[in-house]
Amino acid sequence: MSILIKNVILNKEKKDIFIKGNKIERISDNLNLKADDKIDGKEKKAILPGLINCHTHSAMSLLRGYADDLPLKDWLEKKIWPLEKKLSQDDIYFGTKLAILEMIKTGTTTFNDMYWRPEAAIKAIEEIGIRAVVGLVILDSNPFGSIKNVKNYSEIFKKRKFKNITFSIAPHSIYTVSKENLIWSKKFAQENNLLLHIHLSETKKEVDDCSKKYKIRPVEYLDRIGLLDKNTILAHTVWLSDKEIKILAKKKCQVVYNPCSNMKLASGFFPYEKLKKAGVNIAIGTDGAASNNSLDMLSEIKFASLLQKINPMGRLLSNGIDERKLTIAPAYDIFKSATENGAKALQINSGRIVQGKLADFILVDLNHICFNPGYNLYSDLVYACNGDCVSDVIVNGKVLMRDRVVKNESKIISEAKNRIYLKA
Amino acid sequence: MSILIKNVILNKEKKDIFIKGNKIERISDNLNLKADDKIDGKEKKAILPGLINCHTHSAMSLLRGYADDLPLKDWLEKKIWPLEKKLSQDDIYFGTKLAILEMIKTGTTTFNDMYWRPEAAIKAIEEIGIRAVVGLVILDSNPFGSIKNVKNYSEIFKKRKFKNITFSIAPHSIYTVSKENLIWSKKFAQENNLLLHIHLSETKKEVDDCSKKYKIRPVEYLDRIGLLDKNTILAHTVWLSDKEIKILAKKKCQVVYNPCSNMKLASGFFPYEKLKKAGVNIAIGTDGAASNNSLDMLSEIKFASLLQKINPMGRLLSNGIDERKLTIAPAYDIFKSATENGAKALQINSGRIVQGKLADFILVDLNHICFNPGYNLYSDLVYACNGDCVSDVIVNGKVLMRDRVVKNESKIISEAKNRIYLKA
Repeated sequence: MSILIKNVILNKEKKDIFIKGNKIERISDNLNLKADDKIDGKEKKAILPGLINCHTHSAMSLLRGYADDLPLKDWLEKKIWPLEKKLSQDDIYFGTKLAILEMIKTGTTTFNDMYWRPEAAIKAIEEIGIRAVVGLVILDSNPFGSIKNVKNYSEIFKKRKFKNITFSIAPHSIYTVSKENLIWSKKFAQENNLLLHIHLSETKKEVDDCSKKYKIRPVEYLDRIGLLDKNTILAHTVWLSDKEIKILAKKKCQVVYNPCSNMKLASGFFPYEKLKKAGVNIAIGTDGAASNNSLDMLSEIKFASLLQKINPMGRLLSNGIDERKLTIAPAYDIFKSATENGAKALQINSGRIVQGKLADFILVDLNHICFNPGYNLYSDLVYACNGDCVSDVIVNGKVLMRDRVVKNESKIISEAKNRIYLKA
Repeated sequence: MSILIKNVILNKEKKDIFIKGNKIERISDNLNLKADDKIDGKEKKAILPGLINCHTHSAMSLLRGYADDLPLKDWLEKKIWPLEKKLSQDDIYFGTKLAILEMIKTGTTTFNDMYWRPEAAIKAIEEIGIRAVVGLVILDSNPFGSIKNVKNYSEIFKKRKFKNITFSIAPHSIYTVSKENLIWSKKFAQENNLLLHIHLSETKKEVDDCSKKYKIRPVEYLDRIGLLDKNTILAHTVWLSDKEIKILAKKKCQVVYNPCSNMKLASGFFPYEKLKKAGVNIAIGTDGAASNNSLDMLSEIKFASLLQKINPMGRLLSNGIDERKLTIAPAYDIFKSATENGAKALQINSGRIVQGKLADFILVDLNHICFNPGYNLYSDLVYACNGDCVSDVIVNGKVLMRDRVVKNESKIISEAKNRIYLKA
């Protein structure tokens, strides 16, 4: 299978791009090669790496709008958890499909998932063709999250070949997984060459509880028990001390910034600037739809930048405008976090449009209002656009959206709508 | 002219709606009236009041993405102001058209504008047919903002009849307009039955400078010189003391919350909860595209809610999650701010779908992913949707967008694109 992409804008220049199999084979000014498929950008579309959503719970799209504006305890204990308990494997499959559809429509080509019953997500991912890192969840209180279960899954998945799927082991958090099981998770990840994906320091309570119990903070705790290295993806990392940031840098950990979720759940302010200065790789995620409620990464990155500019951990509150603050988290850096840095975090050979990379990319419609008059592509992408500026999505050399049309779109939506009877 | 809207969802029920002239004439379960035009929602579209953007500088859409991520002083003095000086009347006309197109595509039916040369905005507004309150700007340093100029405009506009346009007098701010000219503005507004639209307390510096100069804070200053009443619209109002909030409530002033601009320019945190508790009418605006960079009100309202939930003026910083914070600025209240409260602020008989109101409304596509599975329309609108869920826009009884198509859309975009040569 090959695709010839004609007349697209790449770094302000018109280019032709030849996709062979699942790779970007050639980029040149003018290519006239035979190909199985052709897309002509007519100089009105720009090519960009696909967005990479580095932390989500895709099946939770089925809970979008189910419970909002409630105190955290009521939200979780009276609404979200009781409803989640009722989710069948089919519900998870349909919810994941709804999430994948939303991600494709808004330009995401890869997501890092954490949810029960990975077989349901895998079915959805393989059917639609997006790329994903599927988490095998460890959670002490839930039978689905047992070590036994994860071992079983691992045995089953080892016997299969996956085109677009790799795996992580995903111990839920330090407050829901015992020290022994955390240590087991890392060992299992190392033995099986898996990433490790965990929530960390999302709330101040989590940090306080850890400090009380272990006399050290969460990052120090994970470091002490050997969980931190470049294969570890830490979601949220809102409450970090300077010492913890140094450890994350030294151990080359991956951190994921989830601005909407941190705002909606009043979790706190992700220390973007300190982490960046320390050289930590910062990726971006939407979290699940219950705490966002959108998986549109082009919406998310505006929050990612703007929240940093007003982050009161700086000098805003005492002195009014800090001149420097407006320059924090500039558009290009944030876009890079949502693409190249995400690819690095998930160890996927994508995130940039260069020869030899995986053919995971998007075309955006430069005639969309958000790109006009058109001074700066990255400013427009981050501050003015949402996912509806994306016209075409290619993953692993396969066209998943063409001129905003995704296969079976209305079926996926109506299947999700049919699950609305679900109540806690 | 009449329109019959069939089978749309209003408050969870299927309704038919009959528009006669520029009014909502009848709402009923089943209407079979003759009409000049018909729109069938097929039970897949919901009808909602149009969004009301209560503070913007529409022509600045021509500067979208021109200068971002710079220190405030450089941004204004080296980039925005020098470029603005070069804007011709045509530029303002084309920029305003681009802004209006974006607003219609994203469901805004009325905007409150503040920019030079209102004749250019008026031409654009009348051509496209959106509703607007056009500001006659007073700015001491600029010949376009002189009292003489405003008197001239007023004389000219008095002789004309406008369908969709009303006027405000718009002294730019307390730091750019003298006390005498502020007092003159209010007197002129009263004599001519105009609203008064002014930036107030956007930055801490503005408050500090005012306090130094007059020994009172900005709201107290405006109150002392007689500018505050229900006809006064105050944009931003970020830095308010409790005493000032009491004054705003007592004088029944209108305040406009501009979350994206406040975040992007690191202005500060709008005291939503205190203002709401005091009973002040809170509307929402996008500000201009140079400091946002989008005019999509459905994107803006997510920022409006989420910024309040993480607003550190509460107890977040010292104690971690404040349970109460997640319930602040709930979806329905924020949607009301962007519709009904905006109509109240601008004294326009719209903002709700009831008989007798102006026919200023939108239809949204309930099959859009953001409304699915579909637990709560207002949660979905505020937290999950952007403007691309809007399918149809009706203003003053006239269809401005039908199934996402606006007349002359590509022409308006290419005209704006042609102005890209503009540089500071």
